[in-house]
Amino acid sequence: MKIVLIGFGSVGQGVAQVFQMKKGLVKEEYGLDLKLVAALDRSGAAINPEGLDIDLLLKTKNETGKVANYPEYGEAGLSGHEVLDEVEYECIIEVTPTNIEDGEPAQSHMLKAIKNGKHVVTSNKGPLALSFNELAKAAMENKVQFKYEASVGGAMPIINFAHETLSGCKIESIYGILNGTTNYILSRMAKEGSSYEQTLNEAQEMGIAETDPTQDVEGEDAACKVVILANSILKMDVTYADVEVRGISQITPESIALAKKEGYLIKLIGEVSKDNLEVSPRLVKEGSPFAVEGTLNVATLKTDLADEVTVVGKGAGSVETASAILSDIISIWKSR
Amino acid sequence: MKIVLIGFGSVGQGVAQVFQMKKGLVKEEYGLDLKLVAALDRSGAAINPEGLDIDLLLKTKNETGKVANYPEYGEAGLSGHEVLDEVEYECIIEVTPTNIEDGEPAQSHMLKAIKNGKHVVTSNKGPLALSFNELAKAAMENKVQFKYEASVGGAMPIINFAHETLSGCKIESIYGILNGTTNYILSRMAKEGSSYEQTLNEAQEMGIAETDPTQDVEGEDAACKVVILANSILKMDVTYADVEVRGISQITPESIALAKKEGYLIKLIGEVSKDNLEVSPRLVKEGSPFAVEGTLNVATLKTDLADEVTVVGKGAGSVETASAILSDIISIWKSR
Repeated sequence: MKIVLIGFGSVGQGVAQVFQMKKGLVKEEYGLDLKLVAALDRSGAAINPEGLDIDLLLKTKNETGKVANYPEYGEAGLSGHEVLDEVEYECIIEVTPTNIEDGEPAQSHMLKAIKNGKHVVTSNKGPLALSFNELAKAAMENKVQFKYEASVGGAMPIINFAHETLSGCKIESIYGILNGTTNYILSRMAKEGSSYEQTLNEAQEMGIAETDPTQDVEGEDAACKVVILANSILKMDVTYADVEVRGISQITPESIALAKKEGYLIKLIGEVSKDNLEVSPRLVKEGSPFAVEGTLNVATLKTDLADEVTVVGKGAGSVETASAILSDIISIWKSR
Repeated sequence: MKIVLIGFGSVGQGVAQVFQMKKGLVKEEYGLDLKLVAALDRSGAAINPEGLDIDLLLKTKNETGKVANYPEYGEAGLSGHEVLDEVEYECIIEVTPTNIEDGEPAQSHMLKAIKNGKHVVTSNKGPLALSFNELAKAAMENKVQFKYEASVGGAMPIINFAHETLSGCKIESIYGILNGTTNYILSRMAKEGSSYEQTLNEAQEMGIAETDPTQDVEGEDAACKVVILANSILKMDVTYADVEVRGISQITPESIALAKKEGYLIKLIGEVSKDNLEVSPRLVKEGSPFAVEGTLNVATLKTDLADEVTVVGKGAGSVETASAILSDIISIWKSR
């Protein structure tokens, strides 16, 4: 399968690493030949119709910061659109930075690929939170696959889990910790009795929270995921603006201690149901599947037949996220 | 799809109920026409090539205890083998009682169907714990599908989860609470400080533990599941005798209290890895995904790329288990 990889930051490099690690196995087990024909970052592109040398690609990026410096096949200044016009491919992996203002440039890349009859795999929350149904409809009309497991929960599989593993059930609602950074902060506060500010600083020092933590701590990241789950699993038609969002910056050590005394923990919870789309701090019971610590994500799917089913996994990490992307690609291959 | 249902106890009746509930939806969503052409219990069979009336079948069983009393199409004394010789079908659902001595009669039913080129879906742990690889090999040779999601963890999906949702990862080990009854007993002991005997009695009164609780409390049920997971997910070649098994009957309230003081709980854990097949009481951390209570099952899959991924779900229940059977049937239909 000829693949164009758009975006070569943390997730994109994770994809390259995973391809390198799994190329042989995937070929053996599924007969799928993973061929990266182009990779792009802000600098331009590396293009080779015979397949790029992934070690060399990673080395080039690592040493020079630019894929355009890839020997012989690198080209500075090429845009995603130019590459998609020029190169022969069957599938794109769209992993440019998330933009929740207008979803660009990811949105246009994906629509272009879909309209050209190519499959799309993405981890990109922005366009999915803004115009999921437009993308899904275009994919259906053009008879291509549109897969986005990695957009929610990184290595916590939930999308394909609901669509495939739980295909016998109707999913009625989803309730979960959809952001690892806030889970880390709240868990530490509960354990240490420390203040929000102090714990956030600590998380920033450890690289768990970003320098500008707004997207995480104010619940915006979780709200994007709520939208994706609502549209894709509950088959709703909603966007980011439909979610009621409250973050964790007002949570005090006192409120956490009070909850703990009664056997509860405070977690930032995303709720997805026909009646309610919400991200807010909630009480969860100790001893419940939601009492997980660290940067873990967790989601409980309420089903009509199997009652509640819960998945827990790492919410982030470049290789972890890339593994979800690889599963999507294998799934496309199997159902071709 | 013409289906023969062998076994009409709790799970079998759950399957009938789920078929009744989901028939329309499954037809609409997947184009799959679920047609139950025969159902069997100890009394004999009800057979109708045009499809049985499921309400009437459930009513007959409910009122008379025997499917052989199904009006017009019931026949007393028919065996599974006779029905499989007589009836035209594409798939069997094997849900007769589990037998971990010799796997019969389920084992013969399944092998017969496979050798006749028919698909098999089962929840039956016995034959899978005794001769999984024989069944899997026969299915492969006869180019039919052999699906058994419901055999481990009822409504906690793990088999298809590993094979499909995590297809990009290699599963290195599995660690889990694979038996709901023991989890209930240990959780209650931790909460109430009560003795093992007292808590077991209470669980028996509530119908959570059986009158003869041996299979559950001595770890035999969990050990069967360890074998199934080892063979199917880790691709090992082992049987029940290869598992080291220790149950929970020696656990005292004192040991539970001691663990709790240090932030741990005692759970009956099944471990599946190339180096170790074991069921035994272990310490798990409070705040970890294993700190779940009640009759929940939980399993953590250690993967090469996605680190640890955990699923939690109801370990039993007739409709819950039947939902896993329906997901298997839909999966067979989708990949036909």
